[in-house]
Amino acid sequence: MKVAGQAMRSIWLEADGAGVGIIDQTRLPFELRTVRLITVDEAAHAIRAMLVRGAPLIGATAAYGMALAMRADPGDAAIGQAADMLLATRPTAVNLRWAVEDLRTLLQQLPADRRAAAAYRRAGEIAEADIAMNRAIAGHGLPLIRAALARKDGQAPVQILTHCNAGWLATVDWGTALAPIYLAHDEGVKLHVWVDETRPRNQGASLTAWELGQHGVPHTVIADNAGGHLMQHGKVDLCIVGTDRTTATGDVANKIGTYLKALAAHDNGVPFYVALPSPTIDWTLTDGRAIPIEERNADEVAEISGRLSSGEVARVRVIPDNSPAANYAFDVTPAKYVTGLITERGVCPASRNGLLSLFPERRAGA
Amino acid sequence: MKVAGQAMRSIWLEADGAGVGIIDQTRLPFELRTVRLITVDEAAHAIRAMLVRGAPLIGATAAYGMALAMRADPGDAAIGQAADMLLATRPTAVNLRWAVEDLRTLLQQLPADRRAAAAYRRAGEIAEADIAMNRAIAGHGLPLIRAALARKDGQAPVQILTHCNAGWLATVDWGTALAPIYLAHDEGVKLHVWVDETRPRNQGASLTAWELGQHGVPHTVIADNAGGHLMQHGKVDLCIVGTDRTTATGDVANKIGTYLKALAAHDNGVPFYVALPSPTIDWTLTDGRAIPIEERNADEVAEISGRLSSGEVARVRVIPDNSPAANYAFDVTPAKYVTGLITERGVCPASRNGLLSLFPERRAGA
Repeated sequence: MKVAGQAMRSIWLEADGAGVGIIDQTRLPFELRTVRLITVDEAAHAIRAMLVRGAPLIGATAAYGMALAMRADPGDAAIGQAADMLLATRPTAVNLRWAVEDLRTLLQQLPADRRAAAAYRRAGEIAEADIAMNRAIAGHGLPLIRAALARKDGQAPVQILTHCNAGWLATVDWGTALAPIYLAHDEGVKLHVWVDETRPRNQGASLTAWELGQHGVPHTVIADNAGGHLMQHGKVDLCIVGTDRTTATGDVANKIGTYLKALAAHDNGVPFYVALPSPTIDWTLTDGRAIPIEERNADEVAEISGRLSSGEVARVRVIPDNSPAANYAFDVTPAKYVTGLITERGVCPASRNGLLSLFPERRAGA
Repeated sequence: MKVAGQAMRSIWLEADGAGVGIIDQTRLPFELRTVRLITVDEAAHAIRAMLVRGAPLIGATAAYGMALAMRADPGDAAIGQAADMLLATRPTAVNLRWAVEDLRTLLQQLPADRRAAAAYRRAGEIAEADIAMNRAIAGHGLPLIRAALARKDGQAPVQILTHCNAGWLATVDWGTALAPIYLAHDEGVKLHVWVDETRPRNQGASLTAWELGQHGVPHTVIADNAGGHLMQHGKVDLCIVGTDRTTATGDVANKIGTYLKALAAHDNGVPFYVALPSPTIDWTLTDGRAIPIEERNADEVAEISGRLSSGEVARVRVIPDNSPAANYAFDVTPAKYVTGLITERGVCPASRNGLLSLFPERRAGA
């Protein structure tokens, strides 16, 4: 998507064919700083320190990390060392594990002198595959936005609410929840996005708002508390969010607070869609309540990062010194509150039969 | 309630019988600074600059402001000047208007040499009446907390979720939503309070958490996004919130985000109570959708105040420079999602008949 009028991705191979460029996302929204990764250590650091985040982008960064390792040393031992280092950065990231193991398997089958080139090529393919999947999600989501516009007799703009950041910064390009929004905007559909700030880590306020603003998509940041009121007053035509993990029955784990917005959408007859690339479907799970919910460091609730009037970015404490805080990272929205799932193969009901209609190869015995 | 082990109120007459003490609530939770008001100008400033906030406390401060005015000049002109100055501080505050007009009427009927003493006495009565009303709410709410404990077979602690600040800092003492919690705690009922931080102004994180901590009530601050997840997992036994305005049919206007918690409580079978002194009932309104919702300055969403590691309190910006923000201050929870209203006369269903059962004098023709 665009940054200051120029197309940009969240990760790219530099012109020399060796270095890998990323955006230091910890600096957003106040500074666009790009970083050149030239060693696997730097790639691992970028993942660990969350310069890059979002499962698909982490996967692509890890794949390029393997390529950077092969560039320095294509020996057998280096494959295992690089893989171990990268896997240790974010132990629960599914795409990271998948990408590293994919590269490891590929590289082990090749002679040393062909490994670096093969790794760069494979990393590029992983990045392109992510983009293609998200572009397909955009295409399938676009009619939903057009339908919302039609339902209001063409009274533009279409008002869309989103939570957290499921945009191009979390993927290689397009994003998931934001992909249909970018496509609709680019096709001239008048729309406006309500951006939940998404406490405690404020990914909506700092990343989604920045993305949308740079691409020229009209938007407004709101407190997470505001969405229900907006829906009660007819100010939201549809919701689109992403997901970290979806069960085979359509329950959706996503950033904490998603469930509350789904309840409000249900109460007010507002369609609530979840956009997801199919690799995030966990076909082994049939009950969202079984999804373990990460409890993160309470400091993320107790402190907020932002820019001082001096221009310096700093953290401020917002709760009393002796008060504890708790930080649940995700919640699970039951399938009954999800109007539909937008996947790269199309839109389906959030149910076992809905998902199987798009992914028939997952039927038992299929 | 207690601060550092000592009983404290949010406003008090000082030992000299002239000065009026308040807490500068803008300094909380990081500094307990008390301020001595000795002129009506200082009282007006304290209300305008939100050193004091909360409808009942604003009313009591305005009443004492009239007394301070009479102490300096008990002439006829001074009554009107003081009243006008105080009324202009927070134009929409109902208790403020009521208190000022009550004092104005009283003082105009008295000879000048009796006005100051009468004003101090009346201000004291207004403060005591607020305390008595809140103590009554505490008494009626206590059995609800005991019942929640009984429902879980005495498996303490009772887990209570609250939103925003409806504590003693918003009143003269006890508070409304927190009153039953303080009473239950003082009577030895084991309980724990989930405190919504309450973006954008963070009254939960900065005021409710401070109050509860100072009084020794176990509590944990959470992001506003977390309550639904906690309720899904059986970690909330009941919710108690306050209200700014309740319709004659039991719809409840309260801090933005309250509606989302009521939806989650309803979805998970968690009782959702609203504590209110009866003066906040608007008997002329029969539909909460008719309650006008204040849109406040967007800077309250764009910036957050907190304490730097240096100890200094500062504001940080948390959204991109070019992103707009919107700031809806309240939402309305429909009566059907409210389990009961806790008033100074008892607990009733959130309905016209429920309210009239406690306030029969409001029946048409009564």
